[in-house]
Amino acid sequence: MNKIRIGIVGYGNLGKSVELGIRQNNDMELVGVFSRRDPSSIKTVTEGVSVYHIDDAKNMTDQIDVMVLCGGSLSDIPEQGPLFASCFNTVDGYDTHAKIADHFNKIDKIAKDSGKVCIISSGWDPGMFSINRLYAEAILPEGNTYTFWGRGISQGHSDAVRRVKGVKDAVQYTIPIDEAIEAVRKGDMPEFTTREKHKRVCYVVMEEGADRNQIEEDIKTMPNYFADYDTEVHFVTEEELRKNHSGMPHGGLVIRYGKTGINNEHSHTIEYKIDLDSNPDFTASVLIAYARAAYRLNKEGVSGAKTVVDIAPAYLSSKSPEEIRKTII
Amino acid sequence: MNKIRIGIVGYGNLGKSVELGIRQNNDMELVGVFSRRDPSSIKTVTEGVSVYHIDDAKNMTDQIDVMVLCGGSLSDIPEQGPLFASCFNTVDGYDTHAKIADHFNKIDKIAKDSGKVCIISSGWDPGMFSINRLYAEAILPEGNTYTFWGRGISQGHSDAVRRVKGVKDAVQYTIPIDEAIEAVRKGDMPEFTTREKHKRVCYVVMEEGADRNQIEEDIKTMPNYFADYDTEVHFVTEEELRKNHSGMPHGGLVIRYGKTGINNEHSHTIEYKIDLDSNPDFTASVLIAYARAAYRLNKEGVSGAKTVVDIAPAYLSSKSPEEIRKTII
Repeated sequence: MNKIRIGIVGYGNLGKSVELGIRQNNDMELVGVFSRRDPSSIKTVTEGVSVYHIDDAKNMTDQIDVMVLCGGSLSDIPEQGPLFASCFNTVDGYDTHAKIADHFNKIDKIAKDSGKVCIISSGWDPGMFSINRLYAEAILPEGNTYTFWGRGISQGHSDAVRRVKGVKDAVQYTIPIDEAIEAVRKGDMPEFTTREKHKRVCYVVMEEGADRNQIEEDIKTMPNYFADYDTEVHFVTEEELRKNHSGMPHGGLVIRYGKTGINNEHSHTIEYKIDLDSNPDFTASVLIAYARAAYRLNKEGVSGAKTVVDIAPAYLSSKSPEEIRKTII
Repeated sequence: MNKIRIGIVGYGNLGKSVELGIRQNNDMELVGVFSRRDPSSIKTVTEGVSVYHIDDAKNMTDQIDVMVLCGGSLSDIPEQGPLFASCFNTVDGYDTHAKIADHFNKIDKIAKDSGKVCIISSGWDPGMFSINRLYAEAILPEGNTYTFWGRGISQGHSDAVRRVKGVKDAVQYTIPIDEAIEAVRKGDMPEFTTREKHKRVCYVVMEEGADRNQIEEDIKTMPNYFADYDTEVHFVTEEELRKNHSGMPHGGLVIRYGKTGINNEHSHTIEYKIDLDSNPDFTASVLIAYARAAYRLNKEGVSGAKTVVDIAPAYLSSKSPEEIRKTII
């Protein structure tokens, strides 16, 4: 069997996780990492991985089946998505929810012209959580869906804290509020305020001589990021931060509560819950499964942009349809 | 917009739940119920529903878009599945796991000849649980998947208890063992015996003068059904049984525990959990969503047998692709 030949575009945390994840899928092989940096300056996590300048990719279209785009959603994917869609099957984890429709339309046009399959907004939210929101709503049309995130580290919020005057380093956890989850399960169909669903907990290393009260005040009142939440600020040493908060855990759950029956007398809940030691590893694992789907769809002659809900689950599995029917159904 | 015209074949608990469920989907309408019984003897749950003899269906191919097959897996579906596949799009909930591959092959041939889409083994297990087993395994290739059922009533086991000498009526609950679920979440990757995953709890109404100890002994030692489980037998009055155990609750969960990282140092769990007041209502709700998918796929020119993993999630939603990208992704 020919292996599916994967390229990684962008070599940050996510790119490194894709590198490791491919090793768990024996129908795939990693052709190389593509970066804007000088290839000679990059040391890959595993040995024997080729590193290329991103500009070399366009000359390697016959060597790579799917490019996994591992850049950020703010500026990398909007630029690299269209560029790579013009000559490769791609998978990206574009996660700016408000702009997904635009991103889709832009990529769709290019991918249809190039005859490639480009799967956008894969990962877990958007991604697996989107799929679960859709299934649950389709099955239980009369009900409410709730998404909770965490306990986990939010990179954007951690960065925001780090920009506060007097803060040397910081990590921010988003934590769903247990009472809110219980209220959903119980069938209260609550309308939550922002504050009622999640709280935010910050671990902060101060710069020498900084004003602890001022830092706490500046964080807690920061608009958009913290003002609408109950926020805890804990001051820790650099060593404590490194020792206890250097991982990248995350997770969350999608719950739908719905009713059926002659008078809506029957209640049902559907919950999809993930608990992750490493957010980038899990996101990479989802992207890799969708890389398999992109490859197979394109082999069938499909082209254009797709989101995760456009793709039948079986395309993600390395098992044959017969094996799936025998062992999974 | 033309509504999707649905027929119900078989009018037991599941058929009645499909009748009610269709009312929650305003892109659908119920054309009628088809039964082997004399139509005049059937009173439908809601008013104004036409009831036909099952033999009349073949003359109504131009009036019905999808037939939802609501008979049992033991003898109804094996007979009615092929019959209806020859002239209708169908959805069934065939749940004899060991024979799904055969059922698929038989229906696939007929449906390809007739140009119809026939979705088999929909519902929750097989069905939504199958989908979740597939996704979870594809995302986390190195790990183990566990399925737990309950707390819920097993019809087959309840029937088995009712056949015991001296038993007037009975209900049997399948209950997953909490310690087993916790062990999976913790990452022990346990290999469970049957007894370690589920227990069985029976509520029994005795016939007058029956031997209580003998009944308990006969149930607990019954091969296949109870001998391999820890089984509790509670004796109750007819009134207690009716009052406390006349519902049809069920549920369960699929959990996958998997590892990633350079040395498998990161653990992840994916859990899909349902908690249902009414097993037939929920099963019906899944079948109805797949009826929408069958209709749409057939409109696109697709034919043949499909299982739930062969169908992209978006086909289940009444929302347009644009709406899905804006509100669900």
